[in-house]
Amino acid sequence: MENSTKERRPVILVTNDDGFRASGIEALIEMVKPFGRVIVVAPEEGNSGMSHAITIKTPLRLKRRKRADDVELYSVNGTPVDCVKLAMNQLFQIPPDLIVSGINHGSNSSVSIFYSGTMAATIEGCLYNIPSIGFSLLDYSSNPDFSAAVQFGRVVVQNVLDNGLSNGTCLNVNFPVLKVDDIKGIKVCRQNSGIWKEEFDKRSDPRGQEYFWLTGYFHNNEPDAVDTDEWALANGYISIVPITIDLTRYQELERLKSWNFTINDQKYVAKN
Amino acid sequence: MENSTKERRPVILVTNDDGFRASGIEALIEMVKPFGRVIVVAPEEGNSGMSHAITIKTPLRLKRRKRADDVELYSVNGTPVDCVKLAMNQLFQIPPDLIVSGINHGSNSSVSIFYSGTMAATIEGCLYNIPSIGFSLLDYSSNPDFSAAVQFGRVVVQNVLDNGLSNGTCLNVNFPVLKVDDIKGIKVCRQNSGIWKEEFDKRSDPRGQEYFWLTGYFHNNEPDAVDTDEWALANGYISIVPITIDLTRYQELERLKSWNFTINDQKYVAKN
Repeated sequence: MENSTKERRPVILVTNDDGFRASGIEALIEMVKPFGRVIVVAPEEGNSGMSHAITIKTPLRLKRRKRADDVELYSVNGTPVDCVKLAMNQLFQIPPDLIVSGINHGSNSSVSIFYSGTMAATIEGCLYNIPSIGFSLLDYSSNPDFSAAVQFGRVVVQNVLDNGLSNGTCLNVNFPVLKVDDIKGIKVCRQNSGIWKEEFDKRSDPRGQEYFWLTGYFHNNEPDAVDTDEWALANGYISIVPITIDLTRYQELERLKSWNFTINDQKYVAKN
Repeated sequence: MENSTKERRPVILVTNDDGFRASGIEALIEMVKPFGRVIVVAPEEGNSGMSHAITIKTPLRLKRRKRADDVELYSVNGTPVDCVKLAMNQLFQIPPDLIVSGINHGSNSSVSIFYSGTMAATIEGCLYNIPSIGFSLLDYSSNPDFSAAVQFGRVVVQNVLDNGLSNGTCLNVNFPVLKVDDIKGIKVCRQNSGIWKEEFDKRSDPRGQEYFWLTGYFHNNEPDAVDTDEWALANGYISIVPITIDLTRYQELERLKSWNFTINDQKYVAKN
């Protein structure tokens, strides 16, 4: 029985985009279990590349799943962001103390954040003003070695629980594929500038109709910059990028205000 | 035949998230036709709420569609971001001069940008370093009056073609539901802080199984701030927010670098 004078244990919501059966989410559960009570709400199926999509045309189902341990597990027939929204709305009287997402099977560094369901769930948690961290391992195989991620991830979680995150900030944490002893350190960095350039694989179906498979490769716009997540990961470091949910490009505001918004000799710029 | 001494007319890629049959995309074509050669690549079906999702599990098809005018029209059985990627990869020898997305049926102000397919396509264009603008009208009906949007949108397009946008910046333009004469002006603003709070509609199916429809309402965190897009739109202005694709929260970098990343007495912070 809980002692009311005892400090309340943190409540941690775990989600991901690879689905509740992924080995990455098991590693994430293992990472955060020592810190508090863990509730998992994750997609029924893999949702890679779903970004911040929400399900509005089909109904959602929240299904309790059995586990051998004391972790509460639910699956949702929707996207990672659906999972966060349903969990926040249906499962918590008091908001959780932390939301963690991942561990993604594959990198979410640089601009991959825009496509990532893992990071979308993290950003959704941040919109709710809950400290949120997305974790990804640069290994696309189905059963990679998450041991270094679990160990170093705990240090990140401990710091977030101890120090908090400022409003409107969440974390994008990526792990290189290295053993614990080979990790050079943890590097706080900025988002690398780059682009996923597509290489469409063009084929013909049996009826002679053309179709495309979307594939692509990452092009780094600034391979020599040493303060980016790409550089950190390529050089043996874990990368941590603080992510903002305010997308305003403040440096451009003044320039845009000087533009000429005139129609039929009438100036339409608002006095700011 | 083109005269080689004649200045090349701008090439403009038009897309949206409501599908190629939406009246909003017709309004957008009307808006940009005076500026150059228009190529439309839009989803076959409505893709609202698809955000920056990409299609990786099913093949994509790019279908040429007939039109009465000289606008090239293609549909894609995918998301808005798929449309931009396929267009960039398959249709252009020289990149287009401008990418415009919309006109969305409904607002994409404030944090709606995270869920918006319209703005995801815009951001994708920006990742390609092409001047990109997303347009949205605060009217969710299927056949709204886009006339003010067309007229004022042209002023925005003209300015972007004349002045350019700095690297990594695109525009989020929202129109209030007002007649041309009632528009108070164009206001350059920052993204409002707020959240879409869900209100799940919980029902039972004929077999007695519970399911949820995702609905929600927008909660404004700062209703009194006068420099936001929400304020502008509520007060009769067209809002323009310059959007960054660098999500780094720079103000947090130094604080995070002071965190204690220690495992077994070993400090793991990288020297930056």
